[in-house]
Amino acid sequence: MEFGEIIKELREFVAEREWQQFHSPENLAKSISIEAAELLEQFQWGEPDDETNVNDELADVLTYCLLLADHYGLAPAELIHNKLSKTRIKYPVEKARGRSDKYDRL
Amino acid sequence: MEFGEIIKELREFVAEREWQQFHSPENLAKSISIEAAELLEQFQWGEPDDETNVNDELADVLTYCLLLADHYGLAPAELIHNKLSKTRIKYPVEKARGRSDKYDRL
Amino acid sequence: MEFGEIIKELREFVAEREWQQFHSPENLAKSISIEAAELLEQFQWGEPDDETNVNDELADVLTYCLLLADHYGLAPAELIHNKLSKTRIKYPVEKARGRSDKYDRL
Amino acid sequence: MEFGEIIKELREFVAEREWQQFHSPENLAKSISIEAAELLEQFQWGEPDDETNVNDELADVLTYCLLLADHYGLAPAELIHNKLSKTRIKYPVEKARGRSDKYDRL
Repeated sequence: MEFGEIIKELREFVAEREWQQFHSPENLAKSISIEAAELLEQFQWGEPDDETNVNDELADVLTYCLLLADHYGLAPAELIHNKLSKTRIKYPVEKARGRSDKYDRL
Repeated sequence: MEFGEIIKELREFVAEREWQQFHSPENLAKSISIEAAELLEQFQWGEPDDETNVNDELADVLTYCLLLADHYGLAPAELIHNKLSKTRIKYPVEKARGRSDKYDRL
Repeated sequence: MEFGEIIKELREFVAEREWQQFHSPENLAKSISIEAAELLEQFQWGEPDDETNVNDELADVLTYCLLLADHYGLAPAELIHNKLSKTRIKYPVEKARGRSDKYDRL
Repeated sequence: MEFGEIIKELREFVAEREWQQFHSPENLAKSISIEAAELLEQFQWGEPDDETNVNDELADVLTYCLLLADHYGLAPAELIHNKLSKTRIKYPVEKARGRSDKYDRL
């Protein structure tokens, strides 16, 4: 299943519920943070014993991310690809290898 | 560009920096929340005037989401598709249409 | 130094910058999440080596929490105290002792 | 009710449930982000109609903040006070008045 199909499915899901009215970029950004924290909650006290919950919460974060990308008319893979080219410059292999430091401390 | 290609690019990016050691599911879940908040920061006091920052931060959330999905061997589109079938039951069209209420208040 | 003093200091800080106009409850709620994630960022890849950053980020979360409490005319200690009485019922000592499970799984 | 009293009450609440074992700084930092997002959820689609939920979620954020401050042996008001003196330098009144821009854009 590819991105083109899933975004169509998402648009349809939203449209038949008439939820576009709630999906301003700001509300979607809030929703991404909210769902990200529900994902994090699965790891609040350590490793989760239930992977299903992790997957469901991850799906929720992804859903709102795709809706926000779609709002801007952008394909997720292109978004990631473009950002990656910037990150490569900030974190050159020879400096960043094996280190978790932020770029300004490399 | 499809998910299959971008996940390959991400794996390569991580591998050449030897960053897999930092990418436990828990650390990825934290990272998703951290990047989600950086995205939200663009909307902290209202609509952002710079769409580039929004796109870059959204790309960061997506990147960590894809790495976490990949950790579990899952394709993002399938994850979303599977969760959507659950959400359809929680939010039936006839009840949820035009409403932003949580399912337990519909 | 007590809550009464620090809230006065915060009000003055905000007023002399004319920042009340930005501090709607919603914007303060977003700000709390944003600062909470900056705190979390100190623990992104493990224990932080710099406690000063942790303290500064924690201070930022607390600052926005106090401003939001003040918006509702509530004292932080009373807020915590009142919520604690509810949590005591949800997590009775005999059931919750030594366990990190959520109340609906105790 | 003052800070000294509420922190004692919190310590007792935690101790009688033997929850100190779960309260590493990292777990507390995660918990602050999780509760901050539950607070944000009250504003997900606009202004909340229920202030009680807002207060309860704000109390949860504050609770974990106080526990983390207490872990470092710090009083919340002092933490805020100390950070404020740094913020005053980053956001001088004459530059920041009436503006929501980040300090590096003033």
